[in-house]
Amino acid sequence: MKIAFIGLGNMGLPMAVNLVAAGHQVHGYDLAEAALAAFAAAGGQRSGSVSQALEGAEAVITMLPASRHVEALYLGAAGVLAQVPVGTLLVDCSTIAPAVARKVAAAAAEAGHIMLDAPVSGGTGGAKAGTLTFMVGGEAAAFERGRPLLEAMGKNIFHAGGCGSGQTVKVCNNMLLGILMAGTSEALRLGIANGMDPQVLSDVMLRSSGRNWTLEVYNPCPGVMAQAPASHGYADGFGVDLMLKDLGLAQESALATGTPTPLGALARNLYDLHSKAGHGRLDFSSIYNLLASQA
Amino acid sequence: MKIAFIGLGNMGLPMAVNLVAAGHQVHGYDLAEAALAAFAAAGGQRSGSVSQALEGAEAVITMLPASRHVEALYLGAAGVLAQVPVGTLLVDCSTIAPAVARKVAAAAAEAGHIMLDAPVSGGTGGAKAGTLTFMVGGEAAAFERGRPLLEAMGKNIFHAGGCGSGQTVKVCNNMLLGILMAGTSEALRLGIANGMDPQVLSDVMLRSSGRNWTLEVYNPCPGVMAQAPASHGYADGFGVDLMLKDLGLAQESALATGTPTPLGALARNLYDLHSKAGHGRLDFSSIYNLLASQA
Amino acid sequence: MKIAFIGLGNMGLPMAVNLVAAGHQVHGYDLAEAALAAFAAAGGQRSGSVSQALEGAEAVITMLPASRHVEALYLGAAGVLAQVPVGTLLVDCSTIAPAVARKVAAAAAEAGHIMLDAPVSGGTGGAKAGTLTFMVGGEAAAFERGRPLLEAMGKNIFHAGGCGSGQTVKVCNNMLLGILMAGTSEALRLGIANGMDPQVLSDVMLRSSGRNWTLEVYNPCPGVMAQAPASHGYADGFGVDLMLKDLGLAQESALATGTPTPLGALARNLYDLHSKAGHGRLDFSSIYNLLASQA
Amino acid sequence: MKIAFIGLGNMGLPMAVNLVAAGHQVHGYDLAEAALAAFAAAGGQRSGSVSQALEGAEAVITMLPASRHVEALYLGAAGVLAQVPVGTLLVDCSTIAPAVARKVAAAAAEAGHIMLDAPVSGGTGGAKAGTLTFMVGGEAAAFERGRPLLEAMGKNIFHAGGCGSGQTVKVCNNMLLGILMAGTSEALRLGIANGMDPQVLSDVMLRSSGRNWTLEVYNPCPGVMAQAPASHGYADGFGVDLMLKDLGLAQESALATGTPTPLGALARNLYDLHSKAGHGRLDFSSIYNLLASQA
Repeated sequence: MKIAFIGLGNMGLPMAVNLVAAGHQVHGYDLAEAALAAFAAAGGQRSGSVSQALEGAEAVITMLPASRHVEALYLGAAGVLAQVPVGTLLVDCSTIAPAVARKVAAAAAEAGHIMLDAPVSGGTGGAKAGTLTFMVGGEAAAFERGRPLLEAMGKNIFHAGGCGSGQTVKVCNNMLLGILMAGTSEALRLGIANGMDPQVLSDVMLRSSGRNWTLEVYNPCPGVMAQAPASHGYADGFGVDLMLKDLGLAQESALATGTPTPLGALARNLYDLHSKAGHGRLDFSSIYNLLASQA
Repeated sequence: MKIAFIGLGNMGLPMAVNLVAAGHQVHGYDLAEAALAAFAAAGGQRSGSVSQALEGAEAVITMLPASRHVEALYLGAAGVLAQVPVGTLLVDCSTIAPAVARKVAAAAAEAGHIMLDAPVSGGTGGAKAGTLTFMVGGEAAAFERGRPLLEAMGKNIFHAGGCGSGQTVKVCNNMLLGILMAGTSEALRLGIANGMDPQVLSDVMLRSSGRNWTLEVYNPCPGVMAQAPASHGYADGFGVDLMLKDLGLAQESALATGTPTPLGALARNLYDLHSKAGHGRLDFSSIYNLLASQA
Repeated sequence: MKIAFIGLGNMGLPMAVNLVAAGHQVHGYDLAEAALAAFAAAGGQRSGSVSQALEGAEAVITMLPASRHVEALYLGAAGVLAQVPVGTLLVDCSTIAPAVARKVAAAAAEAGHIMLDAPVSGGTGGAKAGTLTFMVGGEAAAFERGRPLLEAMGKNIFHAGGCGSGQTVKVCNNMLLGILMAGTSEALRLGIANGMDPQVLSDVMLRSSGRNWTLEVYNPCPGVMAQAPASHGYADGFGVDLMLKDLGLAQESALATGTPTPLGALARNLYDLHSKAGHGRLDFSSIYNLLASQA
Repeated sequence: MKIAFIGLGNMGLPMAVNLVAAGHQVHGYDLAEAALAAFAAAGGQRSGSVSQALEGAEAVITMLPASRHVEALYLGAAGVLAQVPVGTLLVDCSTIAPAVARKVAAAAAEAGHIMLDAPVSGGTGGAKAGTLTFMVGGEAAAFERGRPLLEAMGKNIFHAGGCGSGQTVKVCNNMLLGILMAGTSEALRLGIANGMDPQVLSDVMLRSSGRNWTLEVYNPCPGVMAQAPASHGYADGFGVDLMLKDLGLAQESALATGTPTPLGALARNLYDLHSKAGHGRLDFSSIYNLLASQA
């Protein structure tokens, strides 16, 4: 299958490379020369422009930083929608505002294209290993058409509902994750301040009603889990600033829909304070450190 | 074994009855005549006073409403500690402040007694069925001595560490639970406001990093889980006012230890607003309703 | 002076009437027939369309509900900017997002027009009495040119700085006001719960470091101030839903600029919960009631 | 008048010295030898013990760090209440929990003494200058009897109501102050992020509904007010850790009385995070710095 892949960043590059490995003919484009070179070195076809990448493509996959980039690329007189033939499969894997995803998908439908919003989770590690999770919005037929491509890049492919629902699920899930991580950190800190062993406390809560994903695989207290970022100086993992971006998308959506999210709003502010204190590039589980003296 | 059981309320009564059923000789006491009568009807020995219940007891189990009742019963010139012979096993199953549990346990140790703090979770249903979870603080030898009694009343018996750590674990776990439930409710509300099916959203988050105990067994959105309180008008279950009590204990402990718990503090206030609006007796998952118009 | 006035709602109508009373020739337009009729009855000139109102106008004043209406009216191929002659004075009195105000003002400047953003405070009472406060953004010369018109409608005319700064000041001030009102309500509730007379508590705080505008003129506790909405069933005044709108603009701006506002975010959620409970039309000082049992 | 003064710390020493200057015979006691020496050097009578200070005293004034010290000093078999003759005037100027103030005052009344709780504001500067504000709880007759002593140490003497109400007013006022300062900081930060001059923004809000004590005399933004701590590196003033103590007393009281204080709880956590980040000794207006990158 001939695929145009726009956006060869930390996530997009390994995703596109996995499509090449699956036997597809992938024409990649990125503003950064280094990204194009790396893609070519990995067996991809480098394009000199978006238009060149789109030529003859049966499917277009995009992986961009934010809502405004997606709007700019797809819409407008010289946008993707205006350039590709009717019936092209368009898959946006960026994490953006649900409202913007719905707007772009509606424009795509009007132009006769088939669009999926398919944000991912799993980080750069998952992108390289081809084990990403995709949360996909779009019509059932479109989902089935896109599934083989997504399976070449990921392991869990969820169909969340109509257009925009991939973004909605991602935003809701990550808002909840931000709350789980900060809340679990508070519970651990409170226990330790009362003399508890964090390992024992974690074990009991994991088998009780406090159980959650962070206690299962991503404990924020150093030393409790050997493989968690907390035990490696909070390096790598999912950065504070990325969590902050997702919590911001959640708040934008909460404001737009008039939904009270008091914990979600507070969590966003806590990660923001943590980032402002200089820790934006640490793993998001380092929010654990905001809660105690680091002297 | 001859056991004194003080406090035959909604929780204490079925717990004491299970000890009777396990073959122990249980002398119960409560201020309420009706409770004494019910205990006698179930095969227990009714006592006319605390002192009478304590006579000859090898173990004392208490199940009282709050810190001040536990202090009043155990300490002081006419308290339990002053009345029982050296070496008696004392098990307080009340949910109280960790600091008070440590204070009472220290006094007990000084008087030559063996004390466990062993708060429970599982509600009145678990108390009747003998499937409670016990979170137990105290020395290892004391824990082993108390274990058979606890196993007659519960299913999961966790040794959390030294004196007071049973209370600490319970308080930490339930603070986290209060946050999980409110945070999950916010995520579901935000998804629904964006057009999502709550069933699909719950399913995807359950298989993603938003996974937590409330999505597993206690979904707060009506209709998603047939057996959850949300699908039965939020009746029964674990009441808002009980959650509020535990969140208050967590805040007391956070203030006493100087631990920042911004989400825990906010969660307490949210359940308080919900209770003040008249919903204190509903199941705590009804916090879901605080977040949307009920018109 | 010949003026076009677009938006004759609860605020716009009395403002436009005050301009008529000051001797100006005011051509008004609104989508609602009733508003046009009321304006004509008060001596204004009714227009059949925006274009008709704009004909020959030396100044254009707009008073619209939200950002999107202002964008739609001014921008686009058939917008105000495209219709009026170069050099026309444009004054938008709507309360909208600072970023949108800056965007529209930039487009106006590019088209050769002079624009002021001039949101008001003072409510419908101030609009009728001509005692509104205007917070005005725009160049100094433009401010001087617009000042006589604003003085016909208001009493305090503040020049806040360049384009958009009128909106910024309004949003910042009202976010702070929302916090002051909720914070003062909490302090009064806490005092009363400790047995204090709210009148005495208010008096002492007013002469101490807790002093703020709400204690001066707008005490949220019924009975403390005879003329405050709290003493009249929280009727009239500045509605909860209007405060909620302004707190939402503050949060939009906080997200757009990456500014942590933890108290502002929480305040917005509290007013939202209060509105969702059915009190959106009460005066915003009724947030006092969110904090205690209303049984 | 012969006065016993217990607690000659940063606040107590200058207060006691002012009583000496007013012509009273003041017998001071403190655990620290240096404090006793300084008091003697300033003309006071040093005592070797509490008992010695109390001998023959017509009035007892105490200035201690926290609730537990006040309880320990007044109550118990060898406490002040047991040592002084019936009818002695007792004035506690410490800032403590309202509930503890009421408890000590009730014990004093039972023992036949007259007690006032009279916490102060104004800091060490006000203590030295004799310009403190006293918020006084106790019966009217007791208040009149104590007033001359308080006037020797302060300028504003408020009678807040019955026993404990001095503490209640102080706690409520300072909780509100903590909220005002953090809220004003957020509003200023949001304005600056939108390009506003903080001086202009402060001026407009000061003349609008955002007006509050912090904008009047204690602006948290460096440079806006030459004499405010913000313009002097946040040195001196009222420390973050002192504000944190008062916000903690407010939360203790809120928990004890079942009063929702969501903003007060969050404010306490914000000052706590700021203190944990190493800024506990800066003036509390430095909370302004928590909200932005300090890189």
